[in-house]
Amino acid sequence: MTENIPGFNAIEWTNDGLRLLDQRRLPGEEIYLDLGDAAAVATAIRDMVVRGAPAIGITAAYGVVVSARQHGDQPDWRNRVEDDIRLLAAARPTAVNLVWALERMRACLATAAEEPVKALLEAAVRIHQEDILANKRMGVHGANLINKGDSVLTYCNTGSLATGGYGTALGVIRSAREMEKLDRVFACETRPWLQGARLTAWELVRDRIPVTLITDNAAAFLMQGKQVQWVITGADRVAANGDVINKIGTYQLAVACRYHGVKMMVAAPLSTLDMAMPCGEQVTIEERPESEVLGLAGHAVAAAGAGAWNPAFDVTPAALVDHLVTEAGVVNAPDREKLAAFVGALG
Amino acid sequence: MTENIPGFNAIEWTNDGLRLLDQRRLPGEEIYLDLGDAAAVATAIRDMVVRGAPAIGITAAYGVVVSARQHGDQPDWRNRVEDDIRLLAAARPTAVNLVWALERMRACLATAAEEPVKALLEAAVRIHQEDILANKRMGVHGANLINKGDSVLTYCNTGSLATGGYGTALGVIRSAREMEKLDRVFACETRPWLQGARLTAWELVRDRIPVTLITDNAAAFLMQGKQVQWVITGADRVAANGDVINKIGTYQLAVACRYHGVKMMVAAPLSTLDMAMPCGEQVTIEERPESEVLGLAGHAVAAAGAGAWNPAFDVTPAALVDHLVTEAGVVNAPDREKLAAFVGALG
Repeated sequence: MTENIPGFNAIEWTNDGLRLLDQRRLPGEEIYLDLGDAAAVATAIRDMVVRGAPAIGITAAYGVVVSARQHGDQPDWRNRVEDDIRLLAAARPTAVNLVWALERMRACLATAAEEPVKALLEAAVRIHQEDILANKRMGVHGANLINKGDSVLTYCNTGSLATGGYGTALGVIRSAREMEKLDRVFACETRPWLQGARLTAWELVRDRIPVTLITDNAAAFLMQGKQVQWVITGADRVAANGDVINKIGTYQLAVACRYHGVKMMVAAPLSTLDMAMPCGEQVTIEERPESEVLGLAGHAVAAAGAGAWNPAFDVTPAALVDHLVTEAGVVNAPDREKLAAFVGALG
Repeated sequence: MTENIPGFNAIEWTNDGLRLLDQRRLPGEEIYLDLGDAAAVATAIRDMVVRGAPAIGITAAYGVVVSARQHGDQPDWRNRVEDDIRLLAAARPTAVNLVWALERMRACLATAAEEPVKALLEAAVRIHQEDILANKRMGVHGANLINKGDSVLTYCNTGSLATGGYGTALGVIRSAREMEKLDRVFACETRPWLQGARLTAWELVRDRIPVTLITDNAAAFLMQGKQVQWVITGADRVAANGDVINKIGTYQLAVACRYHGVKMMVAAPLSTLDMAMPCGEQVTIEERPESEVLGLAGHAVAAAGAGAWNPAFDVTPAALVDHLVTEAGVVNAPDREKLAAFVGALG
């Protein structure tokens, strides 16, 4: 998409339709899947071929284009595309970007008369390009908060793989690195999918940013030793009161941050803000299969007969967030009033 | 050893010498290794064939018997056994039980005249049996603190596999279950060795105690949902001020406990108390190979080029411990004065 994406496109529109880098196979294999119908796109989102709130929004937008191209020559094509939009919206429940992107595509669909595929593709590309631009702006806003010589711990994957390109939390880290503020980055491996070990490390190695992985349980000990001044994460949804819904483990990191006086920064585009949701408690937390915990990287590890609880996300109360960074600026110590004023000022 | 060990002996003295259950292969395979010389015993400890502070103490004690039997007919056999004791003591640096058990064996060696192998074997068996007895007592003391209907989260493996039999934290859980106080147990998987998923789940399934595994990063979210009232862990060393050195991640759990008002119980036999170490900061924290974090069973999980920090233990300040449970009783909110008085009263 741009020269800033380090040698791969996680989401790409081609003549054959939508092409996704299969993130489940990374870092061992770089395999791309071509998806020719919307059901396949929904399955790819659900099965985590692609993941990361902004990335699944962009993927779903392209999924609508796939649907329109598939059904465009049929008299009831609008109904069929509407069916596919509902299918895509149901693929994963927690991230708001999915719904947000589909609403934009639905609005485009409503006005598209001639050449709807062309109009929808333009809309999807716009969502994609705007996300990259938002990442870049967020990167600068976040990096400006960081002092030279600080060390950062990041979580899950929030980079080019999780977004249109560049990244949210990883975008802040990339910007801070460009400003020569960061020497190295710590990353939690992020069980059960190991997005930190598999994806974030892969991106940082490609970017020649030294990365040190830790097990998720070692974060507080890292803080006790004063080895990091920041935890920087993305978000799958930010409620109107500033509560942050993000990858399971984010809340535990935020609790450890507060205990140690480590700053907690959440980087999320405006498309992740859900002003219609009063607080985080109201979100649907996706619970994924037990098998993801009972195994590791495809290997069965737990004793037969054991059960597992596998929530994919958790809720971090706004009171534990020091800075919410968006492409439009930073909200310090976010709460309902500040967030309402911030969004109101955007017009 | 006793009827209370559910169908396996992790550590067993046989006519062939010392037999260890290879815990690295669990739960998939139940393979026993016969060790015929002390160097092999030291290697088994270092490579985690056997792990858990009490278990490695007991194993090392039997290792001295192995050494005496091997060298007993040589004129300088005492020197050779002393060399082996040093070798065994250096196998792993953090747990104090290893040093404690070897000191007891060294004292026996000093007085053993005729039939030293017999005398040393009796001493090792005594250490082993005393540990089981201590576990049982600890189990009752700890379980008495738990209310009927409470839920418990435990960490790493502290059961029959980690001790002479029965367990420390898992002994408390077994006792509480016998008292019909616990319906189910949550267990953290405990990266990178997954002792929770592989070993604790295996023991609890054998005991027919329902167990629900969580990723280590989900503990705080479990607490936020008020799903547990207790975290119960073992210890590899307890300093004179009550600081607890235990498996990496224990400290993060303790921080989350304090934040949520969940009670933190540490179950450890008196052999784990190190009154010669003023505080936890002075302990040597073993750092294990990066490969344990970067891969699994020979398979690379992380991107090539990433580094890892892999401390095997961490330090939980005494101020975060609500109850220290030993076979001689409970120290509530342990500190230097209370611990000194407690140990002093034992005579």
